[in-house]
Amino acid sequence: MYSDTNKDCFKILFGKNLKRLRKSKGLSYRKLATRCNIDYSDISKIEKGERNIQLSTILELSKSLEIHPKELFDFELEKEQ
Amino acid sequence: MYSDTNKDCFKILFGKNLKRLRKSKGLSYRKLATRCNIDYSDISKIEKGERNIQLSTILELSKSLEIHPKELFDFELEKEQ
Repeated sequence: MYSDTNKDCFKILFGKNLKRLRKSKGLSYRKLATRCNIDYSDISKIEKGERNIQLSTILELSKSLEIHPKELFDFELEKEQ
Repeated sequence: MYSDTNKDCFKILFGKNLKRLRKSKGLSYRKLATRCNIDYSDISKIEKGERNIQLSTILELSKSLEIHPKELFDFELEKEQ
């Protein structure tokens, strides 16, 4: 199933998906950061997979992007070889 | 959109969905806890919405339930009235 994906890889995949979503909404770091009351440098770190964010931040990001939280997890994981 | 759902409510909704998924897999607290190396009392607290879990725990739970992480967020949020 998905057991090969490790935590660091998961955070990177999450970050890439967040970046894709942010860009699809035409939002800069600063714009997204302002909407969700998160420092823009943190947005950049989340997108680089350097943050192990919590449910509360997931909710804030989804509200700011005006999407359902599950869309933040709409990306492929590494399948078992 | 979903701006009415606050953090506490979101954690409770997440917890209820986790419980639904765990039961659909026929897993007890202990069984799920053992699979994902989380204390079973923590599983119970997550299900009650008392934990602001991180991405790493989300990944662990999804692996243990053998589902994609986005299924952990497959629940209705409170829409704006």
